[in-house]
Amino acid sequence: AGNADAGKAKSAVCAACHGAEGISAMDIYPNLAGQKEAYLASQLQHFRDGQRDNPIMAPMAKPLSDADIADLAAYYASL
Amino acid sequence: AGNADAGKAKSAVCAACHGAEGISAMDIYPNLAGQKEAYLASQLQHFRDGQRDNPIMAPMAKPLSDADIADLAAYYASL
Repeated sequence: AGNADAGKAKSAVCAACHGAEGISAMDIYPNLAGQKEAYLASQLQHFRDGQRDNPIMAPMAKPLSDADIADLAAYYASL
Repeated sequence: AGNADAGKAKSAVCAACHGAEGISAMDIYPNLAGQKEAYLASQLQHFRDGQRDNPIMAPMAKPLSDADIADLAAYYASL
């Protein structure tokens, strides 16, 4: 599993849409706080590899390493 | 917006994977409880029309009407 603290450090850009505590301010952007860790990781991988097609999330996920994804998933699942 | 009570009545099949209270028992299936209503509705529409490709969710969403989708989104957002 990832490291939640490391994930928090990498989450600044995510917070812009998903909220500082993982509760988004926009009804169309999902809350991430307390979401399932494996689900979060799988969705980030799918955004990265294009299996899940989303014009906003694709460029966000593209630069992420597997470790980044694991850490971010651990962080948001921990909220 | 949809009707949460009507959504609850239609949620029996969803509960199998997403949990009776919208907190799933499997790490790979997302929690739905307290998720954003518009996000839930948009994802069900995307599963229904294939914009979001998922072999498990496609047959679940296919038979849903717009009203079903609105009610289910209202229900899970209310948890």
